[in-house]
Amino acid sequence: MDPASSKYSTAREALEIRIRKVQDFPEKGVLFEDLTPVLADGDALAVVIRELAEASRAFGADMIGGLDARGFLIGSAVAYELGIGILAIRKKGKLPPPVITEEYETEYSSAALEVPAEGIDFAGKKVVLIDDVLATGGTLVAATELIERAGGSVVGYAVVLEVDGLGGREKLGDAPLVVLEHER
Amino acid sequence: MDPASSKYSTAREALEIRIRKVQDFPEKGVLFEDLTPVLADGDALAVVIRELAEASRAFGADMIGGLDARGFLIGSAVAYELGIGILAIRKKGKLPPPVITEEYETEYSSAALEVPAEGIDFAGKKVVLIDDVLATGGTLVAATELIERAGGSVVGYAVVLEVDGLGGREKLGDAPLVVLEHER
Repeated sequence: MDPASSKYSTAREALEIRIRKVQDFPEKGVLFEDLTPVLADGDALAVVIRELAEASRAFGADMIGGLDARGFLIGSAVAYELGIGILAIRKKGKLPPPVITEEYETEYSSAALEVPAEGIDFAGKKVVLIDDVLATGGTLVAATELIERAGGSVVGYAVVLEVDGLGGREKLGDAPLVVLEHER
Repeated sequence: MDPASSKYSTAREALEIRIRKVQDFPEKGVLFEDLTPVLADGDALAVVIRELAEASRAFGADMIGGLDARGFLIGSAVAYELGIGILAIRKKGKLPPPVITEEYETEYSSAALEVPAEGIDFAGKKVVLIDDVLATGGTLVAATELIERAGGSVVGYAVVLEVDGLGGREKLGDAPLVVLEHER
């Protein structure tokens, strides 16, 4: 698609117009920012993916890691744009054995992420991790540990939205982070 | 990426080389075909997406519908390649209200798919539904009903693998179906 024909000049503009904000979901006091209408709009999808792909290229990505499930919607197109692969980082139990598993604590319980232990060569791979939202950072930190145990390295993070003030950014460590829009 | 530089000349070749086949998952007697290594290989991802995008263009798609969660990994890149939007068709409970819900029966229980009831203009949209595997067809049939209730129409189906002999193809009705590889 010709970028000049887009309805949006930047990803931020597309997000401001197309995000669906719903108060008190999934629980009281939380403002849920639903990206579904952004991604369903071809012009908005294109500008969001282009900006995340440019950042991922600059970080030196040779593989994209997408977090189950909303990170898949963004990471897959970014990987395709860059001509590299999309690693689906799955929630526990979705993949057949053998797998590499990384457990982590969430606000109310524990969870785990998995990737296949066979069939993918992680050695020396420079991975950029992609998700829709950075909040407390717990999932991205666990995904980083998982990639490093598998033999790759995480060279950057790319997210659509960052919820400021929850400390996620500080937990990610030294690798660079790109964020398209902030929720304050 | 220059297609001539790919390791694979067709999607079928990429699939035959890169699929991870695991017997007895998720239950005894089932052969699970894990596409994770295919999608994590940039050359394989590119040829799979190109072939599905060509078919979706031929079907007249102006929106791609991706099924939660593995359909997201494929549908997003197809939509991006075509310059159109990816509609995330979510499992029940993932989206904030208001939503449109379609319930359906699975082999052992019931399930439901949802899309937002606000923020997306479905009127007259020609949707191609994309998933990783066509087996009994239950999920794709439910997604078709959902799109039509929302005001769009389903003009085709594109899947990576079809498990032959389970009757899925017959359930889909008249819209065309493209399949990259068969499991017999």
